[in-house]
Formats: sequence, C-alpha cells, structure tokens
Amino acid sequence: MTSLSRRTFAQLSALTLAASRVPSFAQSATALPTAKPVGFAAVGLGVISDIFMRACVQTPSVKVAGLVTGHPADKGSRYAAQYGLPATSVYTYETFDRIRDNPDIEAVYIGLPNSMHAEFTIRAAQAGKHVLCEKPMAISSAECRRMIDACKQANVRLMIAYRVHYDPMWQQIRTLDRSGAIGQIRGFQGGFYGIKEGVDWRLDRKLSGGGSLMDLGIYPLNAARWFAGEEPVGYTAQVTTMDHSGKFSSVEEAIEFTVKFPSGMLASAGSSYGEHGPSFLNVYGTQGELRIEPAFGYDGLKYSGTTTTGPVGASNTGRNPYEFVYEADHFAHCVRNNRTPDTAGEEGLADLLAMEAIYRAAGAPIA
Amino acid sequence: MTSLSRRTFAQLSALTLAASRVPSFAQSATALPTAKPVGFAAVGLGVISDIFMRACVQTPSVKVAGLVTGHPADKGSRYAAQYGLPATSVYTYETFDRIRDNPDIEAVYIGLPNSMHAEFTIRAAQAGKHVLCEKPMAISSAECRRMIDACKQANVRLMIAYRVHYDPMWQQIRTLDRSGAIGQIRGFQGGFYGIKEGVDWRLDRKLSGGGSLMDLGIYPLNAARWFAGEEPVGYTAQVTTMDHSGKFSSVEEAIEFTVKFPSGMLASAGSSYGEHGPSFLNVYGTQGELRIEPAFGYDGLKYSGTTTTGPVGASNTGRNPYEFVYEADHFAHCVRNNRTPDTAGEEGLADLLAMEAIYRAAGAPIA
Repeated sequence: MTSLSRRTFAQLSALTLAASRVPSFAQSATALPTAKPVGFAAVGLGVISDIFMRACVQTPSVKVAGLVTGHPADKGSRYAAQYGLPATSVYTYETFDRIRDNPDIEAVYIGLPNSMHAEFTIRAAQAGKHVLCEKPMAISSAECRRMIDACKQANVRLMIAYRVHYDPMWQQIRTLDRSGAIGQIRGFQGGFYGIKEGVDWRLDRKLSGGGSLMDLGIYPLNAARWFAGEEPVGYTAQVTTMDHSGKFSSVEEAIEFTVKFPSGMLASAGSSYGEHGPSFLNVYGTQGELRIEPAFGYDGLKYSGTTTTGPVGASNTGRNPYEFVYEADHFAHCVRNNRTPDTAGEEGLADLLAMEAIYRAAGAPIA
Repeated sequence: MTSLSRRTFAQLSALTLAASRVPSFAQSATALPTAKPVGFAAVGLGVISDIFMRACVQTPSVKVAGLVTGHPADKGSRYAAQYGLPATSVYTYETFDRIRDNPDIEAVYIGLPNSMHAEFTIRAAQAGKHVLCEKPMAISSAECRRMIDACKQANVRLMIAYRVHYDPMWQQIRTLDRSGAIGQIRGFQGGFYGIKEGVDWRLDRKLSGGGSLMDLGIYPLNAARWFAGEEPVGYTAQVTTMDHSGKFSSVEEAIEFTVKFPSGMLASAGSSYGEHGPSFLNVYGTQGELRIEPAFGYDGLKYSGTTTTGPVGASNTGRNPYEFVYEADHFAHCVRNNRTPDTAGEEGLADLLAMEAIYRAAGAPIA
C-alpha cells in the first residue's frame, strides 16, 4: 500500500524520462522511416486540430498539407499562412471530397465533433486517404463498423487517436506490467474529472453522442481494457446531473461505472464535467500496484508503484504536444509500411460497444 | 487537480497535527468528564479487542473491567494479569450474563465475529450494560434493528465503533468540507484493498455475513454517507473472486460498487482481499477536492486538497491505538451524559441496509 513519500519523489526525479524527441522509446519500437513525410489535411480547426498541427512540425514523419474548415476565409487563411499552404489546399466541408485530387494530402486528421467522425472518415476513405480520427471514434458502434468497412474497402489505414497508447511513459508502465512486476492484475480504479467551463458541441447529444463519459470517462475505460487485454462482459453504471442550469439538458454531467472482464478482473471508474478531481488510473495486482496520476492530461504525467523488485516511478517531462508527435509517428509508420495501427478502428469500436453497454446499464439514452 | 508535489509534502510536514492526547480536537468538542472511568468488559479477545484494551489504558475516561472469552484458562488469565483483573472478572460466553452482577462493568466492547454481534449486544443490554460494538454492526439489517430495540428498551447507550469518525484529522476534514471549502460535493471515489493472508472467520459467510465489503468496503461506503449527510437511493455493484484455491468459497474476494444519493451525488468504491491497493477516499467538489490516503488504516493517515482558499493538507502523527482512544472517550462521554453517540446503532443499521442493497445489486448472496 504505497503512498507518495518525499523519498519516493526524490526517486521519481532521478528517474524522469528523457523528453528529447530522437531517439525515443516509441520511435525505436516502430523503426520509423523519415524519407518522405506523410501529408495530413486537418479536418476541423478547433483546439485539438491546432495541437495536432503543432505536433506535425515537431517530427519529420508528417506534415500539414491541407485544411478543411467551415471558415475558410478567416481560420483557413490564418492556418494556411502559418503552415505555408497555398489557398488551393484549404477546403470546406462541401469541397472536402476534392482532396482526392491533391497528391500532397495522403491522410486526414479528424478533429471534428463526434457526430461528424463517421461521415468524414468514410468520405476520406472514398477519396483514397488514410484516416487518423479523434476519440471517441463515433457516436455509435454502428457508425464505427461502417467506418472500418469503408477504410478496408478503400485499402487505407484507419487509426483512432488514443494518444496515451503512444506515450513513452505509458508504454514503460505497460511493459512493466507485462513483465509480471505487480503479479496478476485483479482490479483497476480510475477517473477523469474537471469543471467544464462554457457550452460547446460536447454538451449537445446530437453532436457528442453523450456526456462526460464520451469525452473523459473513455480514458480510464480504454486504459483498463488495454491493460486487461480482453473485453468487458459485465457492466453497471449510474449517471447524474447536479447542475440544473440547463447546461446538461441533453447529456450527463457525471457517471460512475464498473466493468467486469472475463478473467474476473473488476474496474470502476468515473468522469464528470462538474467537479474538481483527478485524472488517474490505479492498477492493483497480487504482487504490487501502479498508480498513474495525472494520467490523461496533455503533459505533466507521473506514475509510481510498488513491484516485486521494489518501488518504481517516473515523471514524464515531455511537453504538449509530445503525445501527438508519437501518435503521428506511429501513424506515419503504419502508412509507409502498410501496417495495422496499434489503435485501429477495432479499438475505437470496442470502446463504443463498452460505452453503449455502460449507458444501457445506467438506463441512459444511447445515440 | 492536485497531485502531491514535493512542495505540498513540505507543507504537510509543517501542518502535522499535534498527536498529544490532551487537549485534543475530539476531547474539546465533547467536554469529557474524567471523574470516574467507564469500566469495559472486552467481549472476544482477538486482535481488535487487544487494540481496544491498549487504548483503554491511554485515557482516564475508560478502563478494562472484565474479559469475556472462549479460552478463560489461557487467554483470559493472560489478559487478566495484564490488566490487573481478578479471576472473577473473567467470563465465558456461557457465563456472560453474570456481568449483570459486576458493578465494575458498566459497558461491553464487542470484538467478536460479526455473526455474534447481535446476540451479545442484546444479552449485554439485558444485563443493563452499555454497548460499544465493532463494525459491521451485524450480519443483517434485521439483526441491527433488534439490537437497537434491545438497547432502547434497556435504556443503555449503543455505539458502533466507527473509529474514523473520532479521528481528529477526519474531523478536521469534515469541518473543512462543512465550511464550503470545496464548494458543493458532487462525487466520491474510494477503496480499501489488501492481501488477506491466511484463513479466519472473515472468510466464513456464516460468521462474517459477507466478504471484503463487510470488512473493508464498509469504510469508503460509510465515509461517503458521512460526508453526503444523506442515505443512498441507487445502487450498482459487481463482485468477483479470482483466487480459486477455495479460500473464497463462501464470500466474495472483491467488489466494486456505485451508490447514488438523493441530491444526485455519486460515489464509486471497492474493496478486495486479493490485491495490493490503497485505502483512500477522494471527495470531489465544485470548488476543490480533498484526498485522504491512507484513509482507513490504524495510523499514518494523511490528507491533501485544493480549496477556495488554497492548498490544504495534514499528516496525522497519532499512533495506533489513538483512534480507539478518541472513540472510547466519546463513548464514555455519552454514557456519563446520557447522550446519543455520533455513531449510534442507526448508523450501523444504515450501513447494513446499504450493504444489503449493494449485494442485492450484485446478485450476490445476502446473510
């Protein structure tokens, strides 16, 4: 039963991971070619696409090659100037399909509201472009299946942007666990909590497909599934909304859920838009435990634990958008080597199936 | 979103609570008279009673006045010598009722297996003695009601030994929360995990009434109810057993559950006998959060948090059995002043009702 002592933190500092870009854990694992960068069109120019584009200039494996936006005159022009693109590389949602004729654009990065993921993934595939799509993959498992089918038919790569999977610190933790360092995993607890200021598409079920679970709770859920290495078979959940201002009239503010895996492992986790709290994953084993916190933010991540060989821990000194860089590198590697991404469409589908089961268990509406 | 930084720990050290016995937070709150100590008979001489008796010699408010054991010749004699009691103050479960005739014994401390709590509470009440009974109060809510009725009829005090409620650090946290320091509470997460070595009555449903929930999960459940200040109305749960050696043939190894309160607050928590993990309670509010860990051990407790007025935190330097001392003081105060204990029988009953609902939600057997 660890707690973070002053001594442990001194050790953490000594163990901090190298944040330098090259060589890195992720790159050495995927043996990335750097001959020709994969050109991306960023679809939707919100916060997340902005981060992704900033990542693109930090690695030779990818580049920003196009922009797709509902505001070509202002947002489009501004980003085109920033990334040195001609006006002809700026598209709208209406002219999107013309990316087919732009050989500089080999792939799209989908940073749109959840409800638009399926349409633009399928249109991109039909235009012959590879797809890196933000999580959640879509607003229903049915949409996920159509996306997978479309990409298969077009023979393009489809990857869901689970950035955590490509973080060297998380890979170190996963490797540690696989080595038996904490014995047999028996349980997980996790969560992702925060105060959502303002109102945006995430609070509109038609666009988001659901509330805090779809946006935040998906992180501990996905992490538990990743470590479990199998799919849940039992679900319970309760949703709640305590902010009655109308902000949460169509999606849940908060949720707490439990999932059970075939091996018997149990996980409980939650998420909220309405309360201060951590982003964390605890992994409990027969021989030790691992605590990751902050676990799901853009940077500043840390972990600590007790294992069969003593205390472990590290602080990840990588700074946002470093996870997006590793993610982009992996995607480029898969495109160049015709390889299935570690977080392919099937991974996004599995989370949607689990989230649908969680909402169903809670008696909550499903998109 | 706090994490325990080196700086925070420096602050914690500076803020450590005074561990000296007098004056203390708990005592000043209850204005304890010290004129005449309340004489206790310890019923059952296992680990927990041993701790309680060690606490009795650390405060003038109580004293060990009798022993009840199935092993009067060895265990009984040994403890009688240790606490300076005559052989006539050692009782067996058969001769128990004769405590009625011993004016030195004003109360009993029930440290028996859960299934024996009801019988000995009721017999003690009928012998005219006050009762301090360990948690869980009993193995069913029906038993709890009979215990409450018996004590009411005999006009004796009945207190359930929720030691956490009497810990000065927990009282400080509760006071902090009541002051609005983290705004409106919207959620809790908690747990109590460990590896149970060996086999004892806790693994025999007939004696324990249930598995890790009854023994460990009751802590975060009770703490969430305490902070919520209301009773849960919605429950979900899943139980699991991954150790198939036969050790867990009659009770669950682990459980994860969610409870919902009328206000909309959600809590999720779990417990296990089969995995390394923390004892913790996280309290999430609209303006801040509180993290207590270790939360439920016998000592070494700590908390930290972010509030409307900045970071808070403290380490409790009290050493076991300090919580039992505060608990005994409160009970003595209630006995001397004819006052209802803060954790009366109704508190134990409420936890049993909640645990029955949790087991029911899990489709698990109920005692």
